[in-house]
Amino acid sequence: MSEAGAIRNLGEIMAAYRGLVDAALERWLPPAGEPPRTIHEAMRYSVFAGGKRLRPLLALFGCEAVGGTLDDAMPAAVALELIHTYSLVHDDLPAMDDDDFRRGRPTCHKVYGEAIGILAGDALLTHAFQVLGDSAGVGIPAERRLQIIAEIAAAAGSAGMVGGQTMDIQAEGKALDPETLLTLHSKKTGALLRVSVRVGGLAGGADDAALACLTRYGERLGLAFQIVDDILDIEGNSAEMGKTAGSDLRKKKATYPAVFGLDASRRESIRLLEEAREAVQPLGEKGAVLAALADFVGNRRS
Amino acid sequence: MSEAGAIRNLGEIMAAYRGLVDAALERWLPPAGEPPRTIHEAMRYSVFAGGKRLRPLLALFGCEAVGGTLDDAMPAAVALELIHTYSLVHDDLPAMDDDDFRRGRPTCHKVYGEAIGILAGDALLTHAFQVLGDSAGVGIPAERRLQIIAEIAAAAGSAGMVGGQTMDIQAEGKALDPETLLTLHSKKTGALLRVSVRVGGLAGGADDAALACLTRYGERLGLAFQIVDDILDIEGNSAEMGKTAGSDLRKKKATYPAVFGLDASRRESIRLLEEAREAVQPLGEKGAVLAALADFVGNRRS
Repeated sequence: MSEAGAIRNLGEIMAAYRGLVDAALERWLPPAGEPPRTIHEAMRYSVFAGGKRLRPLLALFGCEAVGGTLDDAMPAAVALELIHTYSLVHDDLPAMDDDDFRRGRPTCHKVYGEAIGILAGDALLTHAFQVLGDSAGVGIPAERRLQIIAEIAAAAGSAGMVGGQTMDIQAEGKALDPETLLTLHSKKTGALLRVSVRVGGLAGGADDAALACLTRYGERLGLAFQIVDDILDIEGNSAEMGKTAGSDLRKKKATYPAVFGLDASRRESIRLLEEAREAVQPLGEKGAVLAALADFVGNRRS
Repeated sequence: MSEAGAIRNLGEIMAAYRGLVDAALERWLPPAGEPPRTIHEAMRYSVFAGGKRLRPLLALFGCEAVGGTLDDAMPAAVALELIHTYSLVHDDLPAMDDDDFRRGRPTCHKVYGEAIGILAGDALLTHAFQVLGDSAGVGIPAERRLQIIAEIAAAAGSAGMVGGQTMDIQAEGKALDPETLLTLHSKKTGALLRVSVRVGGLAGGADDAALACLTRYGERLGLAFQIVDDILDIEGNSAEMGKTAGSDLRKKKATYPAVFGLDASRRESIRLLEEAREAVQPLGEKGAVLAALADFVGNRRS
């Protein structure tokens, strides 16, 4: 298949899989009418806000790339999206990034108040682990499921995502050296993206060699994703992104272009995505969707 | 053994087990010097703030009551204390209860700032599940460990503790009917106390009959604990409690004495603790420590 064909095909696959992820989220989240209603409404308001579902897609693609089924990876896919959503809800709070809009809609705490914003994030994070712990209808071995839980928690916690958010807050208004910026990025967004592909592989029964391919892919893709994000914040169109372009600059956020310059950032993202594609070549045809997704990340506009 | 003897003995057991829990927390929390330091310092500041470790003790006692060992229940004990601590850190935030002091010390966000307060809570909650998922050296079956994870998450999430906190915030300044107050209490503090005894039992290999005894005990003890808490807030000594007595009244919190009166509350707590003691009688001598703990909860001054 030509590269353009693969990418056109990828768009259809992504749309179809997003539909499956949304259906699973719908099924596994408590109903909005369940008391106390406010917390369940707030959880759903944030989850169904038009996200790209990148982390679930990485888990599902990673699972299929090693011969697993979509059902094998769906609990992890759902948990990853719940954790990603909670991190956005807490990030938007007044004490954190203080954002009123996300994806073109008022943020959770603007609609439900700050206390419910905090609690909705807490509930989403907790529910992720309930989904992972709950045994109903999952065919993969219990030991593997425990490993998936431990890996996701490690990637989301103080050594991963929360650690990156801590660094991000402490870095505001400061000039960062390149090494610190790379550590910040690898923790703040890289760790969860990387673990998404990995736990997909674990759910699909990956052996050590295949898991190493997926891990290398996830690392490269995760860093490239953040660099592209930083570039889009400078060059992007506010309407397409659903948030205000240039907000990193105004908030004096540590970004890749700020430290390395725009041209070097573009070159680095291209290099990383090339490495990501190479990393999944040993998986053969089954890894082609992951390779195509690397192109998608490089070409994204929002 | 006489009742007074059992209670004196209980004090020694509690002190010894608290020491073991603290050692496990010390071992399983990331070191304070681990970068980013601020988040790890804030996590430890809140965990090592002189808590009673009631939830870990319930898990350890519940496990021994069905013939399990302390090692079997220690991961759950640690996870429960991390979750309890995170809930206090977030509860104290300005947007929630806005408390400057807890147990006689400045609260986490007063020391580290509001953003780190939010993130430290997030990290503690996440770390709880990392401890539960991590396989190292635990002898209980993987399926049981998944059940423990699912039950703890359910008790801590929007149907349990977070749901209770949501109700609590929405109830401030309102007169609650008795049924709503009981639901609020059973979610806010009851669910985590109840699950603490249950997962101790699960870790210890309890059969259905023993688990039913522990569940009944945990339910009664959990509700009694909250009623005694409410009474202490009215009658207690601020110095002994490490927080300001009467704060529920000032914050117009929904409390048991406010709805049922002080005398009826006292009678109800005595009745519930008697039922708790009865619930563990079928477990024989091994359940005696749990029975003694019910007396301790009834007699506590802080």
